[in-house]
Amino acid sequence: MKIIVADRTDPSGSSSIEQIRRWHRDLTGGPIIGLVPTMGALHEGHRSLLRQARQECDQVALTIFVNPTQFSPDEDLETYPRSLDQDLQVARQEGVDLVWVGDRDELYPAGFSTRIDVPMMAQQLCGISRPDFFAGVCLIVLKLFHIFEPERAYFGEKDYQQLKIIQQMTRDLDIPIDVRGCPLVRESDGLALSSRNLYLDDAARQQALTLSGTLFKARELWIQGLTHSAEVCQQALEQLDPAVELDYFEVIDREHLTPLEKIDPERGAVICMAALVDGVRLIDNIILETR
Amino acid sequence: MKIIVADRTDPSGSSSIEQIRRWHRDLTGGPIIGLVPTMGALHEGHRSLLRQARQECDQVALTIFVNPTQFSPDEDLETYPRSLDQDLQVARQEGVDLVWVGDRDELYPAGFSTRIDVPMMAQQLCGISRPDFFAGVCLIVLKLFHIFEPERAYFGEKDYQQLKIIQQMTRDLDIPIDVRGCPLVRESDGLALSSRNLYLDDAARQQALTLSGTLFKARELWIQGLTHSAEVCQQALEQLDPAVELDYFEVIDREHLTPLEKIDPERGAVICMAALVDGVRLIDNIILETR
Repeated sequence: MKIIVADRTDPSGSSSIEQIRRWHRDLTGGPIIGLVPTMGALHEGHRSLLRQARQECDQVALTIFVNPTQFSPDEDLETYPRSLDQDLQVARQEGVDLVWVGDRDELYPAGFSTRIDVPMMAQQLCGISRPDFFAGVCLIVLKLFHIFEPERAYFGEKDYQQLKIIQQMTRDLDIPIDVRGCPLVRESDGLALSSRNLYLDDAARQQALTLSGTLFKARELWIQGLTHSAEVCQQALEQLDPAVELDYFEVIDREHLTPLEKIDPERGAVICMAALVDGVRLIDNIILETR
Repeated sequence: MKIIVADRTDPSGSSSIEQIRRWHRDLTGGPIIGLVPTMGALHEGHRSLLRQARQECDQVALTIFVNPTQFSPDEDLETYPRSLDQDLQVARQEGVDLVWVGDRDELYPAGFSTRIDVPMMAQQLCGISRPDFFAGVCLIVLKLFHIFEPERAYFGEKDYQQLKIIQQMTRDLDIPIDVRGCPLVRESDGLALSSRNLYLDDAARQQALTLSGTLFKARELWIQGLTHSAEVCQQALEQLDPAVELDYFEVIDREHLTPLEKIDPERGAVICMAALVDGVRLIDNIILETR
């Protein structure tokens, strides 16, 4: 009989949870599965997730499901872009092994009643104007993790707050999955790729370009030596088209998402923003690397 | 490339989640692991869980951890009975393969911030006087499920509400674990086994006996033909020692835990109760089988 007591370190220095994982791994085994959860309407950003998964895993699973629990009643659940045939084509091109198209009634049957949340990180930034969003994201991601039991899961840094909340949930719940973030992908003119860009007409698209414009400016200011967040934000936001309705523009800690008054050159930061452009809610962010 | 679309049934009639599970199972494999989560202070009730796990699984894992998140500040977290040497002896006798003794700092490190709950089922019965209890139970059980990835997990029907909430959470989150309930175990005089029985002196133990007394009486009344819950409760509670401070005594649905005014002979019911006996909180229940 093997006995593991958590406050006694084993000879290899592993924590007791690591010891159990090893015990478990020795009992089973198998190929490395990479999961890429999406809501479909796949674009170049999703392709970059699939490519990274393809490079790093034996099996790549793609899920397509427009998850109702992360939409508020006034949001675009019913009109969210759907393009299954094109998505399957993308999946084939990227060498996906399994595509799963989810179904609301199967995932949320009558009587469903479990809730999950990471309140400290979710009640800020996007969580203020979208109070149900992250609880809904955590719920579907946790379900997908249990359904696929992947070794790795891939999310875009485009949804920075979402990525960090999922990583926190995964750590807190001891989920044996490596949640990997992939760099945000932009159009050549700087617009962050988003399925919701399909909603933009030409004029709105021009306005939307000023979102990334503010972020590039902010990074420039940071590189030039500015460290006070208020100054960086104020000067950067001069780039924003006046027709754009800003939701938030915040300099925050890269891991904990806490607002930063001043940026520590040795820690860097991330600037996250959200705005309404001609009625379409867009988000974007930029990482301020250490300097 | 395999494609699964949830609203199209496959030839075998499997749901899409079942199809993914099969896909996953075909990729891996391994022995059947049975998990028995406990707070230690093992008694005959825990032994019955270990024996059932031993009979049904290739590997049996026992966890011992007095989980702080399920205790309120005014409860008995620090004084809860602990008897590790005896518990290890019990584990050896019952043929356990792995014992894990958990540690608070490892399970809940600084910055821990995820919450989970099954509010509909948790905000009643024990949830009224113990508002943090089930959220804490769900949290530790979910963590243990991720850490051990067992095929089966065993819980006593003594904690009936807890068992049903864990089963609901497991279904809702698509956790690939079969959560099995094992019958409540009683002393020969009828007292339901509980680690907290160690707190009772002789006089309190005599009072505590009247808890099961009321339940046996209620079952007798049910068998005799009574179906109105109010009548059953009123007559049964005449058995209760007046020194016992009753928290609740409720006739509820066996699956959904909803209160029943009248018991359907084809569905049966369960009666759950909680009471303070000389300051010690005890729970008990009895299943009213269909008749």
